[in-house]
Amino acid sequence: MSSPSPVKVIGASDSPYSHRAEAALRLKGVPYELLLEDLGNKSDLLLKHNPVHNKVPVLLHGEAAICESLVIVEYVDEAFPGGPPILPGGPLARAAARFWARFIDDKCSKPFWLALWLEGEAREGFEKEFKENMALLEAELGGKKFFGGDTVGLVDIAACVFAHWLGVFEEAAGVRLVADDEFPRLRRWAADYAADEKVGACLPDKQQLLKNFTAKKAMFVASAKAMLPK
Amino acid sequence: MSSPSPVKVIGASDSPYSHRAEAALRLKGVPYELLLEDLGNKSDLLLKHNPVHNKVPVLLHGEAAICESLVIVEYVDEAFPGGPPILPGGPLARAAARFWARFIDDKCSKPFWLALWLEGEAREGFEKEFKENMALLEAELGGKKFFGGDTVGLVDIAACVFAHWLGVFEEAAGVRLVADDEFPRLRRWAADYAADEKVGACLPDKQQLLKNFTAKKAMFVASAKAMLPK
Repeated sequence: MSSPSPVKVIGASDSPYSHRAEAALRLKGVPYELLLEDLGNKSDLLLKHNPVHNKVPVLLHGEAAICESLVIVEYVDEAFPGGPPILPGGPLARAAARFWARFIDDKCSKPFWLALWLEGEAREGFEKEFKENMALLEAELGGKKFFGGDTVGLVDIAACVFAHWLGVFEEAAGVRLVADDEFPRLRRWAADYAADEKVGACLPDKQQLLKNFTAKKAMFVASAKAMLPK
Repeated sequence: MSSPSPVKVIGASDSPYSHRAEAALRLKGVPYELLLEDLGNKSDLLLKHNPVHNKVPVLLHGEAAICESLVIVEYVDEAFPGGPPILPGGPLARAAARFWARFIDDKCSKPFWLALWLEGEAREGFEKEFKENMALLEAELGGKKFFGGDTVGLVDIAACVFAHWLGVFEEAAGVRLVADDEFPRLRRWAADYAADEKVGACLPDKQQLLKNFTAKKAMFVASAKAMLPK
């Protein structure tokens, strides 16, 4: 029997998108090597394997390179069928998981970012949009422990930024988007996600994140302004 | 044996997103009823079954509703395993198909729309971006008949707007984004897609599209201006 192809993640320690790739591998019990990228000076390895987006994470599996974090999570689920499933079993439940995972990327990420880093009236509009979308996630979570049920799955991994990064970003930005008594189910879910022995083990240290994000504040503000519609 | 659950598509005849849902069902040989939506006066049925996005298409399968066109295509592939596969078989090929399908929605649609309907310098930037991304699709297609090989698959369905709608939009907008001698592989692919007996049969009539889009030109221009970054 030949040895299995080595698995590597080209990632960045601060990135919730990188975390998605690592979380999927850890859920499956797949050993991997993390190749940390300096996003200010991207490596030839990253540019070679993700020439379309030039972004982390990239999963290297033997000779193959897989890009885009949600695509990576589904790939890991299919390429390592031995571990616990990340997507649910039936077509309808799988469609729902894909719907909510895309909802997070398409509808939550941008208003979240702009509500963090903009100021004034523009910021307020995005905060409202962000909180409306968080309310939809709160309703979708309902009384379940995780979005998929009793164990971490695709939507939980997709939503990781709200489990672990949200409060750090709020502190670095000096804004409070979610009050202590808002979204109690998502708050409980965030604690359960961080406490999960598999995915919790690859969450970055919050103090280090805060330090890094505070240092990048001017860059984040500029990135938000560049995204602002007229 | 109980009769199969009825399949319906809440769609709009001009919409390439609606076409994606119909194309998937036709590839699988699944009979369906098309419920045509007036997008200027959305039905209670649409708002009930897609409360998050209020958009077509929605697939109704018995009591279940599935939203978001790419999610619908994957659902159809999984829920009707008897027909020819829409996604390829191996995890790596499936990841590549999902990557390129998302690339079309995330990277091609917006610059395409803005290059059609804006004017001046802003337009030129989006035309350049659109054509760079079309060049990536041209390279990904390579010498294959369809993106997935010899038969229509996920990426072909995702890219349908460039197979059938592109020239009509150009004519309605009064701009030429793609010259006759550009992207010869995509041009040949577009002809093959339209000639496919299954998916070609649910493509809307181009003269009718042109009439409808010409009538909506002012609305399209306004929608493009609203998307323009500062």
